[in-house]
Amino acid sequence: LNRIKASGLKLRFCTNETQATRAKFVKKLQGMGFDISVDEVTAPAPAACCILKERSLRPHLLVHNDLVPEFSEIDKANPNCVVIGDAAENFTYANLNEAFRVLIGMEKPVLISLGRGRYYKETDGLKLDVGAYMKALEYACDVQAEVVGKPAKMFFESALAEMGVPPQQAIMIGDDIVNDVGGAQRCGMRALQVRTGKYRPCDENHPHVKPDAYVNNLAEAVDVILQQL
Amino acid sequence: LNRIKASGLKLRFCTNETQATRAKFVKKLQGMGFDISVDEVTAPAPAACCILKERSLRPHLLVHNDLVPEFSEIDKANPNCVVIGDAAENFTYANLNEAFRVLIGMEKPVLISLGRGRYYKETDGLKLDVGAYMKALEYACDVQAEVVGKPAKMFFESALAEMGVPPQQAIMIGDDIVNDVGGAQRCGMRALQVRTGKYRPCDENHPHVKPDAYVNNLAEAVDVILQQL
Repeated sequence: LNRIKASGLKLRFCTNETQATRAKFVKKLQGMGFDISVDEVTAPAPAACCILKERSLRPHLLVHNDLVPEFSEIDKANPNCVVIGDAAENFTYANLNEAFRVLIGMEKPVLISLGRGRYYKETDGLKLDVGAYMKALEYACDVQAEVVGKPAKMFFESALAEMGVPPQQAIMIGDDIVNDVGGAQRCGMRALQVRTGKYRPCDENHPHVKPDAYVNNLAEAVDVILQQL
Repeated sequence: LNRIKASGLKLRFCTNETQATRAKFVKKLQGMGFDISVDEVTAPAPAACCILKERSLRPHLLVHNDLVPEFSEIDKANPNCVVIGDAAENFTYANLNEAFRVLIGMEKPVLISLGRGRYYKETDGLKLDVGAYMKALEYACDVQAEVVGKPAKMFFESALAEMGVPPQQAIMIGDDIVNDVGGAQRCGMRALQVRTGKYRPCDENHPHVKPDAYVNNLAEAVDVILQQL
C-alpha cells in the first residue's frame, strides 16, 4: 500500500464487509499496520444509504448490530423497504419473520441486500452468508433483491466515481474470482487475482471469469502495476 | 366425510402438515368431530421415510420437535442427507448453519424438503414456511432439493397406490389452487377447489391452474361427487 500511495496512483478499498462499520473495519486493518482511512473505503452499507436517500426509502434493517451506526442518519420510521446484511446472530426465526411481514405487507416489496455471498469460514466453522437469507425472502415474497456490494456493477462504478477515474484506467486487485475479478471486469476495469486469501487453484478453471493476470500476493501485484507506469 | 365413507368410496387425507406426527394431527381432527384414523393419512414425513429407506439415506433432521417421532425407525448416524421440514422455532441461526455444514460436506449434497410452501398464517401473524429455508440451503450449496408433499406428483401417486385406485378414477378436494388442485391434476386426477380455507377469489384467475369445478364448501363437494356415481 505504501508503494502504491508513494507512486501517486489513486486508491480505494472495496469491501463487502457488513458485520461492522467502516470505522471498526479500518481500525482493525490499522492495527495490522495498514495505512488506511475511513474515507478510502467503499462498502455496501454507505452505498445502500445513498440509494435509500435518493429514492426516499425508509428501511427496516435486518443487519448485524455493529453495522447499525452506518444507518444513523437514515429515517427508519414507517418502513417502505427491507435492507438485509450479514446479520449473523440476528438471523433469528423471529427477526426473519418480522422482515418478511414488513416486505409482504408492501404493495411492491423492495428488498436491498448488502452482498449475495453464499457462505464464509470463521474460526468455528462455515456460516451461511447474507445471500442465503436473501434467497429465502425473495422466494417467500416473490421478489428480486437489489444487491449492493461486489460484484454489482454500480458498486464498482461508485468507487471509480469517488476517485474520479474511468474504468479503463483502473485495476482491481482481489482474491475472489467472481466478486472481485468478474465484477470489476464487467465494469470495464482490468483485474488481477492474488493467489492468497480465498483463492483456490480451481479458480484458474473458472467457466466464465478469466483474470487479466495472476499474482502470488499483493506485493507482486504492486510490482506488476508499477512496472507498467 | 361420513357420507363419503357410507357411499363405499375410498378415501385418503393428503396433508402437508409437518409440525406434528400424524397421530397428533389425527387426534386434533377427531377432537373436532371428524371420523379419521392415522392409516388414512398421507403426509410428507412418512413419505420421506419410504424414500430414505429405499435409498439407504441417513438424515440429518431440521424439523419441528413434534415431528421427530415419525423418523424413529430411521438410522440417523453419520448422516448422508438433510431432511428439512417446517421447523418453526427450530429454524435458529445455529441449526441452519449446522444443516448447511452437513450438506456442504457431502460429495453430492442430498436435500429432501417436506413441502415447498412460502408462508402461512398463524394467530400471531404470517410465518415463513419451509420453502423459504429450503431456498436458502439450495442457494448456499448450489443444489436442488427433492420436494416431498403436495404438489409433488410422487406424493399423490403414493396416496393413489395406498388406495389401489388409478388417477382417472380419483378426485381431489382442496382449498389450495397450486398444491392441491394443480398437483392432483398434473398427476391425472380431477380436482375440485373449495371456496373455504386459504381460497382467495383471485385463485379463479390463476394463470396456470383451472380446477374441474368450484364448490362453496366440503359438503357441496360431496353432493357433486355422489350425484355422479
